[in-house]
Amino acid sequence: MYMFVLKSGADTSTLMEKLKSSSASYKTVDIYGKKVVIVWPDSEAEKINDDSIEISTKVKRPFPLASNEWKKEPTKIKVKDVEIGGEKVVVAAGPCAVENEEQTLTVAKAVKRAGASLLRGGAYKPRTNPYSFQGLGEQGVKILKKASDETGMPVVTEIMDTRDIDVFKTVDMVQIGARNAQNFNLLREVGKLGKPVLLKRGMANTVEEWLQASEYILSESNGNVVLCERGIRTFEKSTRFTLDIGGMIAAKTMTHLPVCADPSHPAGKRELVHSLALASVAAGADMLIIEVHPHPEVALSDSEQQLTPESFEVLMNRIKAVVSALGRKV
Amino acid sequence: MYMFVLKSGADTSTLMEKLKSSSASYKTVDIYGKKVVIVWPDSEAEKINDDSIEISTKVKRPFPLASNEWKKEPTKIKVKDVEIGGEKVVVAAGPCAVENEEQTLTVAKAVKRAGASLLRGGAYKPRTNPYSFQGLGEQGVKILKKASDETGMPVVTEIMDTRDIDVFKTVDMVQIGARNAQNFNLLREVGKLGKPVLLKRGMANTVEEWLQASEYILSESNGNVVLCERGIRTFEKSTRFTLDIGGMIAAKTMTHLPVCADPSHPAGKRELVHSLALASVAAGADMLIIEVHPHPEVALSDSEQQLTPESFEVLMNRIKAVVSALGRKV
Amino acid sequence: MYMFVLKSGADTSTLMEKLKSSSASYKTVDIYGKKVVIVWPDSEAEKINDDSIEISTKVKRPFPLASNEWKKEPTKIKVKDVEIGGEKVVVAAGPCAVENEEQTLTVAKAVKRAGASLLRGGAYKPRTNPYSFQGLGEQGVKILKKASDETGMPVVTEIMDTRDIDVFKTVDMVQIGARNAQNFNLLREVGKLGKPVLLKRGMANTVEEWLQASEYILSESNGNVVLCERGIRTFEKSTRFTLDIGGMIAAKTMTHLPVCADPSHPAGKRELVHSLALASVAAGADMLIIEVHPHPEVALSDSEQQLTPESFEVLMNRIKAVVSALGRKV
Amino acid sequence: MYMFVLKSGADTSTLMEKLKSSSASYKTVDIYGKKVVIVWPDSEAEKINDDSIEISTKVKRPFPLASNEWKKEPTKIKVKDVEIGGEKVVVAAGPCAVENEEQTLTVAKAVKRAGASLLRGGAYKPRTNPYSFQGLGEQGVKILKKASDETGMPVVTEIMDTRDIDVFKTVDMVQIGARNAQNFNLLREVGKLGKPVLLKRGMANTVEEWLQASEYILSESNGNVVLCERGIRTFEKSTRFTLDIGGMIAAKTMTHLPVCADPSHPAGKRELVHSLALASVAAGADMLIIEVHPHPEVALSDSEQQLTPESFEVLMNRIKAVVSALGRKV
Repeated sequence: MYMFVLKSGADTSTLMEKLKSSSASYKTVDIYGKKVVIVWPDSEAEKINDDSIEISTKVKRPFPLASNEWKKEPTKIKVKDVEIGGEKVVVAAGPCAVENEEQTLTVAKAVKRAGASLLRGGAYKPRTNPYSFQGLGEQGVKILKKASDETGMPVVTEIMDTRDIDVFKTVDMVQIGARNAQNFNLLREVGKLGKPVLLKRGMANTVEEWLQASEYILSESNGNVVLCERGIRTFEKSTRFTLDIGGMIAAKTMTHLPVCADPSHPAGKRELVHSLALASVAAGADMLIIEVHPHPEVALSDSEQQLTPESFEVLMNRIKAVVSALGRKV
Repeated sequence: MYMFVLKSGADTSTLMEKLKSSSASYKTVDIYGKKVVIVWPDSEAEKINDDSIEISTKVKRPFPLASNEWKKEPTKIKVKDVEIGGEKVVVAAGPCAVENEEQTLTVAKAVKRAGASLLRGGAYKPRTNPYSFQGLGEQGVKILKKASDETGMPVVTEIMDTRDIDVFKTVDMVQIGARNAQNFNLLREVGKLGKPVLLKRGMANTVEEWLQASEYILSESNGNVVLCERGIRTFEKSTRFTLDIGGMIAAKTMTHLPVCADPSHPAGKRELVHSLALASVAAGADMLIIEVHPHPEVALSDSEQQLTPESFEVLMNRIKAVVSALGRKV
Repeated sequence: MYMFVLKSGADTSTLMEKLKSSSASYKTVDIYGKKVVIVWPDSEAEKINDDSIEISTKVKRPFPLASNEWKKEPTKIKVKDVEIGGEKVVVAAGPCAVENEEQTLTVAKAVKRAGASLLRGGAYKPRTNPYSFQGLGEQGVKILKKASDETGMPVVTEIMDTRDIDVFKTVDMVQIGARNAQNFNLLREVGKLGKPVLLKRGMANTVEEWLQASEYILSESNGNVVLCERGIRTFEKSTRFTLDIGGMIAAKTMTHLPVCADPSHPAGKRELVHSLALASVAAGADMLIIEVHPHPEVALSDSEQQLTPESFEVLMNRIKAVVSALGRKV
Repeated sequence: MYMFVLKSGADTSTLMEKLKSSSASYKTVDIYGKKVVIVWPDSEAEKINDDSIEISTKVKRPFPLASNEWKKEPTKIKVKDVEIGGEKVVVAAGPCAVENEEQTLTVAKAVKRAGASLLRGGAYKPRTNPYSFQGLGEQGVKILKKASDETGMPVVTEIMDTRDIDVFKTVDMVQIGARNAQNFNLLREVGKLGKPVLLKRGMANTVEEWLQASEYILSESNGNVVLCERGIRTFEKSTRFTLDIGGMIAAKTMTHLPVCADPSHPAGKRELVHSLALASVAAGADMLIIEVHPHPEVALSDSEQQLTPESFEVLMNRIKAVVSALGRKV
């Protein structure tokens, strides 16, 4: 694939005419302050030149916009005033599922006190079984918003359906879950929505497929994507999923986007969450997302893996120690 | 979980009142000519009895409606006049993607002549890469419909988005693809649509998760689901996916629903499609879905794995031989 | 890598001198009636030519002797008077473990009657747990030999340790099990022993690694290797392993060696063994190896997956039907 | 399974008689200063009591000696004067393969200077391909011994064959590699040898199978086993293997044995070794084993993943920082 980075303010009308009259396919994108055109196949792209083109570059990887071949400096993403991908390691914490206002607010205050920067919580819940608790939906989003207003923490929560896009206009960061990691229409809509996106890796997706999923969002002119590793499916059953820290770091060598780890879902058990969280930040994760519940034993979902606020506080202190030993902050 | 199968024509008003006033959760379903109520948790379900209940039975597996614990006879599904799950092994064939009318009609006639009963073809295409050919969408569905009218073969084609439900009202059998195998909202909508469904297994889904996905459809009172194994993700790379014939047959031991195999996607290479197709029917598949293209080498997608019409005809003859050796027909 | 196939009866002394004085590495092998030299790296091999060389050919795959790049016709292997890799599909059957003389002889007679050509049975047993029954060892081999003498069926049984090579001089076909599939010293010793080898694929080995394991045997001038697929490790747990029929057939497209399937170990449950056996022969397996026990419920190992003699007989009749539908015999 | 821990110095003759005359199976083991008898099945074990028995306890896990159900305090293992499993995190470093004296000594001195406590190096090399460099064998062990004498670092090196046991009498710690992780005869012989063992997890072994492999060694009265996670086989190919840090820590919750991580083999690429090493110690590994070569680009094996001495020194400083942030030392 070829990427044309256009001169700032240049007249692109002749270039567009050349593209239209060629047999090349192309897509125009506004991203990171640049106007960019992705053109393929190479044989057609190579025939085109125009005064409006500042840089014409061949991109080897199948995710040109997400690749660090053209954009070498790491991308920093702002969720309100929280920056992801910079010196600070950002921690999002909160309940697996929003169950009610009190539960959500209790957790929100506790995780904020312990040092979390973002509030997580599931309103729309993708559940394996149709008879399980399916989340509060739009009402859950409202509860999160309220907890956000009270604590000042921006909210990250999961979208499951293209029909719900309007509800997510009030959300600070939109999460694409593992089961929708290749729901391409949803990726495109979330790209168009323009909000920062936390993109989970599908449990059977290669790193390359994950980065191509992010390309669906970036190619809609939304460059604010954080890649979130949450464990892959393997034969091992002593943990729920296998957190692929190597894959997360391999992604980081290929992209300018920040990376996040979710230690809760792969652990499946509270006692392993600490180890996986510490491992992830030591490896170089820019962000963590952790499940915390005031009373995990009565949680409506994932009761085995949610931390108590007390345990989360202990973990935050250990995270701070490790992160600062490696020259970063929380 | 408990299942109450209700007496035909019984007054259910007192039962409904008992359920509402209990702390049980429940879902009422009309399926296979019966009215059924799924009730949980067991401790609450056990407390309830009522004159309208014919059978009250505990179901051990997490997919009560799909389980053969309560419905022992195999389910036969009608797609227009084609019956799936009976004595005949049904073959669906056609192009990976609908590219144009001529290509589709040519293939449709060829596969019909060779013995196929259903026409397959992708209109909405889930593509790993945003810059790949994404399918013709609604126009593709119209082309399929036309080819169906000309050949008399019912059509099976994939849905990707809850917003497209209306388009699929004209389709004979709706396919849920591997990447949407746990897109639970889509499963529910397709359940409500009431059309026969070909439900592919997600590439990282266990057999139990696959059957729970089918339960999303059945619990919307749509019992017409065919389970389609299409290869799982493993470490092996000499094939594109690993066709899990053992998993397909293991599913059959737990459910009354028919099973289908897709030998094209796991093969990834034409030369292996024959072997996997023959293996699948020998193992006991009720249906096959196979990609055929008039000129695979210029196909807009999956060009490596589509059969020519000639090769498909050879395969059909071998399938007939194997199937008849085992006492079935094509 | 390069392969020099030498002229029959040619004087190789000058070639050997050239090789010794070059900086190439090489290995001389007598196989399939030819003298062959494997030479690497290519840059060095290309410099060498000699009158004794009939064919000098570059081999792309990392298993030159096992590859069908140089030897296109399928290899037929004789285990006494039983030919594997020809028109007939060969079935080996017998108990998971040899438990005593009576059990072994009873099964041997039953499987012979049903149409098996080879007797299988474990004397040395690789058990996951140190406190499980570990097999009868050398005594087990003697019992097999006796059953072989009485029934006229050649014996295939597993070797686990290089120190036991002498015991296996009396065995007709030596099996390398999945857990020793990359025990390279054992592969080499079995190569030197010169007996036909049934080489199981390691449960985490790619097809390419499996073929390289066979190359360890072939490079010791023993070309009598049958490749046996027995299921790979995947996330799916409704079967014990995932029988990779696609991988087995992919191997066959790359090698001249015959392929075998073991449907018993992946099935893990009796009810699935039939389906996997039929699938394997329909796909093109040249051989099957199946566990049969007179009383599976009291077997000392693998009691869940061993067939009764009666069930085996039913299966053999179905295998015969499928195989003959595809133009082969049992 | 039952475990009888015997009274120190008690007369066991009547117990042994009772066991012999019962229909129980049993194994007597001297371990951690105790005499222990493993007895099964439970129904038989429960019938036996005797004055010599101090504790009679049912063990739920299939690895009674390795389980922390009976031995709660962590086991510390001494390799000469180096203690593994205590407060200090132990680092073993050295070349993938011993190539010659100079290379080995150069690396040994460099890794010692940087803070490594043990010297690693391969003399017997399990290579996927028969035409690859197979290691120097016994000569390689002698070179390691010499480097050990000059630097004072104990040596850990891999055994591949039961026939080589005598050579390993001079080695300080014996490694069982991933490909021999279920070579049960080798495990037993290494148990009998009595040397400390570094037991790698097989690339397709579950944590439970890995612990059962360690039980083969412990049941030969050798309690000095360190469990080494080195990456499992998954579908992901951007790394060579998937380092299963979750599985390593899950093992630690079930056993008293120390755990080690090998970040070099799963990384496959130098740039990922640092991240995986830091992640492992942050998660709680008691030991690391890392490949270092004076000139990785010309190494005879694994040239892509070996660190230079300079890079190793940088890594050691980062490891020290992380480990000390978590209250341990190097």
